[in-house]
Amino acid sequence: MPQSNPVRYADANPEVRAVYDDIMATRGIDDVNNFWMHIANHPPTLKRTWEGVKEAMAPGALDSLMKEMVFVAVSASNGCEYCLRCHTDAARKQGMSDEMLGELLAVVGVATQSNILANGYQIPLDEDMMV
Amino acid sequence: MPQSNPVRYADANPEVRAVYDDIMATRGIDDVNNFWMHIANHPPTLKRTWEGVKEAMAPGALDSLMKEMVFVAVSASNGCEYCLRCHTDAARKQGMSDEMLGELLAVVGVATQSNILANGYQIPLDEDMMV
Amino acid sequence: MPQSNPVRYADANPEVRAVYDDIMATRGIDDVNNFWMHIANHPPTLKRTWEGVKEAMAPGALDSLMKEMVFVAVSASNGCEYCLRCHTDAARKQGMSDEMLGELLAVVGVATQSNILANGYQIPLDEDMMV
Amino acid sequence: MPQSNPVRYADANPEVRAVYDDIMATRGIDDVNNFWMHIANHPPTLKRTWEGVKEAMAPGALDSLMKEMVFVAVSASNGCEYCLRCHTDAARKQGMSDEMLGELLAVVGVATQSNILANGYQIPLDEDMMV
Amino acid sequence: MPQSNPVRYADANPEVRAVYDDIMATRGIDDVNNFWMHIANHPPTLKRTWEGVKEAMAPGALDSLMKEMVFVAVSASNGCEYCLRCHTDAARKQGMSDEMLGELLAVVGVATQSNILANGYQIPLDEDMMV
Amino acid sequence: MPQSNPVRYADANPEVRAVYDDIMATRGIDDVNNFWMHIANHPPTLKRTWEGVKEAMAPGALDSLMKEMVFVAVSASNGCEYCLRCHTDAARKQGMSDEMLGELLAVVGVATQSNILANGYQIPLDEDMMV
Repeated sequence: MPQSNPVRYADANPEVRAVYDDIMATRGIDDVNNFWMHIANHPPTLKRTWEGVKEAMAPGALDSLMKEMVFVAVSASNGCEYCLRCHTDAARKQGMSDEMLGELLAVVGVATQSNILANGYQIPLDEDMMV
Repeated sequence: MPQSNPVRYADANPEVRAVYDDIMATRGIDDVNNFWMHIANHPPTLKRTWEGVKEAMAPGALDSLMKEMVFVAVSASNGCEYCLRCHTDAARKQGMSDEMLGELLAVVGVATQSNILANGYQIPLDEDMMV
Repeated sequence: MPQSNPVRYADANPEVRAVYDDIMATRGIDDVNNFWMHIANHPPTLKRTWEGVKEAMAPGALDSLMKEMVFVAVSASNGCEYCLRCHTDAARKQGMSDEMLGELLAVVGVATQSNILANGYQIPLDEDMMV
Repeated sequence: MPQSNPVRYADANPEVRAVYDDIMATRGIDDVNNFWMHIANHPPTLKRTWEGVKEAMAPGALDSLMKEMVFVAVSASNGCEYCLRCHTDAARKQGMSDEMLGELLAVVGVATQSNILANGYQIPLDEDMMV
Repeated sequence: MPQSNPVRYADANPEVRAVYDDIMATRGIDDVNNFWMHIANHPPTLKRTWEGVKEAMAPGALDSLMKEMVFVAVSASNGCEYCLRCHTDAARKQGMSDEMLGELLAVVGVATQSNILANGYQIPLDEDMMV
Repeated sequence: MPQSNPVRYADANPEVRAVYDDIMATRGIDDVNNFWMHIANHPPTLKRTWEGVKEAMAPGALDSLMKEMVFVAVSASNGCEYCLRCHTDAARKQGMSDEMLGELLAVVGVATQSNILANGYQIPLDEDMMV
C-alpha cells in the first residue's frame, strides 16, 4: 500500500486547482509532478509549501541557479532521492555543468568533514570570535 | 578537561609547521586558528584536511563566495557552531549581505522541508524520472 | 546479495521464537514482519529491540496514536522508508487522518527550519533562559 | 564577533514592527525573544518564518500541546539548544509533565534506533507493503 | 531556567537509587554524572537507558575500546558535546591514542563524504549487489 | 533520466584511467564499481575522493576491519543504501560476524539515544569536564 495517492487535477477541489494552476503558470509547464499531487492530500500543506518554495526559490539577492544548487547540496546531505532527481535536473537546465556539480559536492563534503572534526575534537571558539 | 590541546607553532614538528606555513601563506594571515591547531594533534589529519579544504574551496567553476555560502548552508544544517562562526565571517568578508544570508537560509529551510515531505508521504518518482 | 536473510519461525531457535510469540500476542497478528525476522540474525538485538519498542510504544502518559505519530515524525526526519511504511500504516489504523498527517509534517518542517535559523544566525539564549 | 545583532523594536522598520506586534498579540506577551530579533536582519525571512510558525503551530486536527511536543522531539533529534529551551518551556506551560517528556524522548529514541537497524540490515519492504 | 534539575542520590526514590548503585558498582566509581541524574526525572527512562547502555557497551564480540570509539564516532557525527566529553574520555582511558582518534574521525569523514557523493550522484546499485 | 552516466574504462581519459588502475591494483580486483565510475564525471572529484579513501581506510593505528565497521556504522546512521551494501560486504569479507554486526548497530543505537537524551534534557557538563 502506498503512503498516499496522488490528487489528479480532474479530481481536485478549487483550492488545490488554484495552486496547481499557479505552479504550472510560474514554471511554464503543463502538469504538476508527484510531489505536489501527493501533498495535496492536505490542501493547506500544499498551499503553504508552494508559497514557501515559490518565494524562497525566486531570484533575489541570489540567482536561481545558485538557489537550485544549494537545494541539491542540502538534499544530498539529507539523502532525499526524490528531491535530488527534481532539483539536479532543474539545476542542470539552468546551466549546472559536471564541473559545477563536482565542486558543489566537494564543498558539501569538506564542510561536513570540518563539522565532524570541530565536534570530534570539541574545538573551542577562537578568542576573536568571542568578542 | 578539554578534548584536546592546541599545537602551537613553537611546539610543532616540521611536518605540522609546513602545513601552518601553507595555511598562512594561502590565506594571507599571520596565525592559524584553533581548528588547525587542534587537529594537528594527528599530523596526517591536519595535512589531509588542509589539502582537501584548500582544493575544494579554491575558486573554480564556482567562485569563492558561493563556496563559502554552501559551507555555511551545510554547517547550519548540521548545527556546527565553530564552523558557522568561521565561515559566516569568511562569507561576509567576500561580500555576503544580510539579504544573501537570509535567502541562503530560506533555501536551506525549504529544501529540508521538501525532503521531509517527500519522505513523509513516500512520494514515488515521476515517470519521466525513471526513464 | 542482500545484507541479511530473514529468520523464519520454522528455523528459529527457542529464544527467537519466544520473542516472535510475544510480538504476535502483543499485537494480535499471526506473523512477524521483515524487520523482526532480519534483526533476529543476532538474537540479543532482537530481544533488546523488541523489549525497548514494547515498553516505549505502550500507552502511558502519552497515548498510542500520539506515540505512533512521533515515530512517523522522527522517521520522516531521518528518511527511513521501511519505518515510514510500517508506522504511517499503524498511525492510520489508530485514527490518523490526512489532516493530522499534514499538520504533523508541517510541525516537523517548521521545527527543522527553526533549528536551521537558530544555528545559522547563532542566536544567543535569551536572558531569562540563562537564570 | 556575534553572527548577527538583534533588531530592537525601537530600531525596527514598519514591516518588522508589524510582525513583532503580531507575535506579541498572538502570544499575549510584551516582548519578542532573540530568535525573532535576529532573523529580523532579513525582514522577508522574519515575515515568512513567523507566518509559517503561526499557521503550523495553531491548534487544528492536532492540539497545541501535541504540536509543541513534536517540536521538542524534532529539536532533540537535531540537537538545537535554543529551540529546545523555548519549546520545552512552551510545552511545560501547556501541561507537559516529566512523565510525558520521558515518554516522548523514549519514542524518539526507539524510532531512531529502528531507523538505524532498518538501514543497517537493509531490510526489504514486506510483501504487503508493495501492493 | 534549566531544562531539568538533577536528582541527587539523597533525594532519589529507591527505584532510582537502585540504578545509581548499579551504575557505580559496574563502573567502579563513587558518584553518577549529570547524564544519569537528569534523566532520573523520569525513572523508567533512567532504568531502560542504563540497561540498554550496560548491555550494549559490555565487551562481547567487540571489545570495550572499540565500542567506546564507535560511540565517539556517532556522537561526533551528531554533534553532541556532552556525549563526546564523556566517551572520548572513556575511550582515552581504555587506550585510545591521538593516532587512533585521528584515524577514527578520518573514517567518519570519508564515510560521510561517500554517503553524500552516493546520494548526490544517485549512484545505482552494482549488478552484483542486486542478486 | 539518471542523475549521471558511468564513465567506462574504455571511454575514460588517462587521468581517470590512472585512478581506476590504482583502485584495481590496491584492491586486487579487475573492475571498478559504479561509485567510482559515476564520480568520474568530474575527474578531480574522483582523484581526491579515491586518495582520501585510500589513505583513511588503510590499516594504521586501527586495523582494516575496525575501519570498515566504523564506515558501516556511519552509513547506517546516515541511511546510505549504496555505501551500506559495499561496506557491509567488505566488513564481512574481513571477518565481521552476525554477532559483531549486531553489537555494532547496538552501540550506534545507544549512542544516538544518548545524544537525543543529552540534548532533550539539555544536560549541563559535569564540573570535572569543565576544568
